[in-house]
Amino acid sequence: MKERIQQFTRFLEAAGGRKPADLLLTNLMLVDVYTGEIRPASISVSGGRIAAIDPDPAAGAKEVLDCGGQFAVPGFMDAHVHIETTLLTPEALGEVIVPWGTTTLMADAMEIANVAGEEGLLALTDQSEKLPFRLFLEIPSRVPTAPGLETTGGILGPEEVRRLMERPESVSLGELDPSKVLDLREEYLEKILAAMDAGRVCNGHAIGLGPRELNMYAAGHLTDDHECVTYQELLERLRVGIAVFIREGSSERNGRTLLEGVASHGLPTEHIMFCTDDKHVQDIVREGHISYNVQLAIDAGISPVQAIQMATINTARHFRMEDQLGSITPGRFADLMLLPDLKRIRPSLVLKDGRIAARDGKASPVPPKRYPERLFETVHIPPSLSEKDFAIPCQAGQALCRVIDLIPDQIINREAREWFSVWDGLIPADPERDLLKLSVVERYGKNGRVSSAFVRGFRLTSGALASSVSHDHHNIVVVGSNDHDMLLAARELERLQGGFACVYDGEVKASAALPLGGLMSSLPAPEVMAQMDCVNHAAAELGCQMAAPFMTLSFISLPTVPELGLTDMGLIDVLAHQICPLILETK
Amino acid sequence: MKERIQQFTRFLEAAGGRKPADLLLTNLMLVDVYTGEIRPASISVSGGRIAAIDPDPAAGAKEVLDCGGQFAVPGFMDAHVHIETTLLTPEALGEVIVPWGTTTLMADAMEIANVAGEEGLLALTDQSEKLPFRLFLEIPSRVPTAPGLETTGGILGPEEVRRLMERPESVSLGELDPSKVLDLREEYLEKILAAMDAGRVCNGHAIGLGPRELNMYAAGHLTDDHECVTYQELLERLRVGIAVFIREGSSERNGRTLLEGVASHGLPTEHIMFCTDDKHVQDIVREGHISYNVQLAIDAGISPVQAIQMATINTARHFRMEDQLGSITPGRFADLMLLPDLKRIRPSLVLKDGRIAARDGKASPVPPKRYPERLFETVHIPPSLSEKDFAIPCQAGQALCRVIDLIPDQIINREAREWFSVWDGLIPADPERDLLKLSVVERYGKNGRVSSAFVRGFRLTSGALASSVSHDHHNIVVVGSNDHDMLLAARELERLQGGFACVYDGEVKASAALPLGGLMSSLPAPEVMAQMDCVNHAAAELGCQMAAPFMTLSFISLPTVPELGLTDMGLIDVLAHQICPLILETK
Repeated sequence: MKERIQQFTRFLEAAGGRKPADLLLTNLMLVDVYTGEIRPASISVSGGRIAAIDPDPAAGAKEVLDCGGQFAVPGFMDAHVHIETTLLTPEALGEVIVPWGTTTLMADAMEIANVAGEEGLLALTDQSEKLPFRLFLEIPSRVPTAPGLETTGGILGPEEVRRLMERPESVSLGELDPSKVLDLREEYLEKILAAMDAGRVCNGHAIGLGPRELNMYAAGHLTDDHECVTYQELLERLRVGIAVFIREGSSERNGRTLLEGVASHGLPTEHIMFCTDDKHVQDIVREGHISYNVQLAIDAGISPVQAIQMATINTARHFRMEDQLGSITPGRFADLMLLPDLKRIRPSLVLKDGRIAARDGKASPVPPKRYPERLFETVHIPPSLSEKDFAIPCQAGQALCRVIDLIPDQIINREAREWFSVWDGLIPADPERDLLKLSVVERYGKNGRVSSAFVRGFRLTSGALASSVSHDHHNIVVVGSNDHDMLLAARELERLQGGFACVYDGEVKASAALPLGGLMSSLPAPEVMAQMDCVNHAAAELGCQMAAPFMTLSFISLPTVPELGLTDMGLIDVLAHQICPLILETK
Repeated sequence: MKERIQQFTRFLEAAGGRKPADLLLTNLMLVDVYTGEIRPASISVSGGRIAAIDPDPAAGAKEVLDCGGQFAVPGFMDAHVHIETTLLTPEALGEVIVPWGTTTLMADAMEIANVAGEEGLLALTDQSEKLPFRLFLEIPSRVPTAPGLETTGGILGPEEVRRLMERPESVSLGELDPSKVLDLREEYLEKILAAMDAGRVCNGHAIGLGPRELNMYAAGHLTDDHECVTYQELLERLRVGIAVFIREGSSERNGRTLLEGVASHGLPTEHIMFCTDDKHVQDIVREGHISYNVQLAIDAGISPVQAIQMATINTARHFRMEDQLGSITPGRFADLMLLPDLKRIRPSLVLKDGRIAARDGKASPVPPKRYPERLFETVHIPPSLSEKDFAIPCQAGQALCRVIDLIPDQIINREAREWFSVWDGLIPADPERDLLKLSVVERYGKNGRVSSAFVRGFRLTSGALASSVSHDHHNIVVVGSNDHDMLLAARELERLQGGFACVYDGEVKASAALPLGGLMSSLPAPEVMAQMDCVNHAAAELGCQMAAPFMTLSFISLPTVPELGLTDMGLIDVLAHQICPLILETK
């Protein structure tokens, strides 16, 4: 406390102009998200925070930066993002997003939590003060997502959630799918109460809900939703007091429609903010991050100040941190950017904690970070694992089996039914009919279970693909034409301790390591992108024509996306929420 | 937890239309503070909370109320109020404010805290669920206000503040005067940090601060101010990220000027809300409570929806309770009113917790409440107290003394200097020159100190007036023409255990008891008003021409309002923040 008071005192002295500031930004146009004004101003910074607006020039500063008349805008905030799906560590992600002006992420790190529980979660934010952006946690509500239907590395029950909720880096309960509330699941109601007790909000995920269900969802204290697709949905959410995060991700591109609706109806925007949810590195590099949402808002006819408010103060208020974030006012973190043009969001300079984090599209170097050793050792499959474990035995001559039938460009799938021939008491894949084997190998060393089924849509003519990213349990998922290559692909992921592998004819053709929790690379963004090109190319050579086969593979085993899922415990009938038999009939 | 979950579950079932609601309000125009719409709707209520907007009619309700097309508006919130200065208990105050639609008070109960510390504070909110309004605490930051210069009954140091801050009824650190931050007083910085750690805001009191000092105040994490008098001041506060509470009290009538400024400049109002601070019962009864602020806003040209937002959702968001309060949306408390006319704020019906709290200007009866016995025993003066204790001895024949020179209708005073004749070694009052004696008697039984000085402005020709309300220490303050009547007046307050007394020629002419902490009456509002008329009338008969002599008396001893104050420790030079001698020169 003594030290905090001293630090506070030093800061106040600088704010009062009694001591020189660390930095003085002069000759700028301040975008004031409180009054809506854009006005000439100067800004002083001390101890990483905004000390004063238009400080007494006599107070002086250690460093002065003439901003050449550019606009000063608060750093952008992403209200909901899954860091792990970028395949990058926070350090590497920073290099990509900070040049676009994003200085705060509200991260629902449910992937690493499913792999490594509380330890994994907290390893992400440990030492996050060294990052070029501010990292807060939306404490994942679904670890595991489907209790009883999958094995995960970590479990966050109500007790863990309550403990985590009290931490300073926590901002909310992470997205809770509606079924948990609509089905009155006690465990999740307890998690909601824990969030409320800690003064945190509860992030929603109100996909497809109509007004009646929204009443119940809002009554369950869900405070926001990032799944709106139409303006009508957006309006219906606000009408029950649910704030809206307008999402612009890689696949889900909701921005244009929603923002045009808001602009054309002149809807108040205080309860509307921005998120990316899942956005690939390539897309971030090409078009921007939250800056792109802001750009879409401006292009839709919303005023630049209002668009900036949606990316800054609105988010800060929603998460109850407006005294720390979201504006360029005294006491807040000195996270801001300079824009040469207010209608084209391309920052020339980005500051975090009052230090230069990016300039002209290039991030400042960030010191590497050490993660706990255990997070690099999360793939444990039994030494005894053999081809036999991938086999699907059958006593008859022919078998009618369920098949996971992929729908191109969609995350959902259909259940198909196909007859297979039995060979030597086993049902093999049938690549000619695009009926491949799909297996999930439990990778946390808890039981070593392997379960197998059939899938249509990958069109591999031979070989196998494996991934240790497989939502949300993140066991090893393998698709292949034969058990031999499938085993090898799984073994390659064990060797790499996670990643993607492409195997053909007993040989690893290409692989990409994701050793941090089996989810994230240790490499910088450009190298990760190059590796992905490489494994995708190898998959194409085996006949797979998908744009992103490993992405598809990573979502295929989800036990919560209809109609079928596959976990280490077996084939899942998602709508019935239970394990179902693979073989329906034999002859 | 079991029980909370069950209750939550029952509520969700009603919200989902699976069980009948307690109450269904039909045929109304909903004022939607999220979207800004006014639209036809119905509202269901269950377990005291809004369950659904436009619920499925098939779900049914135990009771249905046809609202006849009236407007449904969220209950109003007072962002900053001192309950004790109304002289009423919360129960009695409710009868006066709830008919005007106020359903939530953010109370800075610094008076009772100065008298009885934590116990006094928590006695106010104990069982507050039975009140017809919602009562939250702004934890007083100044108990005592002037440490070292006054004796108080209670003390709230940083440790007590930290503990209190964690309580569910706490919403903020109560108004912190700027000097504490500008002077870098460690104890107060610690209290600010305690509030921040608990996720609470810090209420400001930025009276008279210019932009430079505001920078320092905002940097100190002060989040709001209710002392703006001009539009320019309001703008300057928003520009440093300090929210503005527009105050309309009995003496401080800032509403019209500020709201006309906001309206004429089209300033965004998200960070502007309403408070009364100090408003007398007569004024509330006559013109309204927060309803009057709303009315002023509408009259100034602000749209009714925006005016209502300032009284509801803006306040709820500021205090980080928008998931509980401030809108008519599912999950929030069913605190609302019906208005026949949206431009004339006169509720026909007020609900709190979904139950009728007032109808047509009349409050529903509230069960009486028992307070701890100790709070009725707060006046302890030494049995040995005698006229001698009020005497001002002097060895010479004449003495030049400092005089507290009142300025009509202002809280500040000037220091005057007058020569007095000495009689029998004592300096008596000199009513002919309107130079009366003023004494403060320590009333907490801690030291029994009495200190005396002179005052000009009361114009008593004889007798004495005494009060146990004396900001902020609330010792007994007595003004009089002679020591005999002054002693009797103090004794009368001891007998009543607090209140106001008017004494003449050895006899109590009139008195009003304020036995709860020596600050609040046990009676309902009309009786308290009648008693006040009575004591004021008696004071007038003694020659005092002030409109509110006991109010003046209650502020005269403040050791923080320039130029002079008087506490049990002596005459205070306020600007020098130290005790100063009464007698300057003798001859």
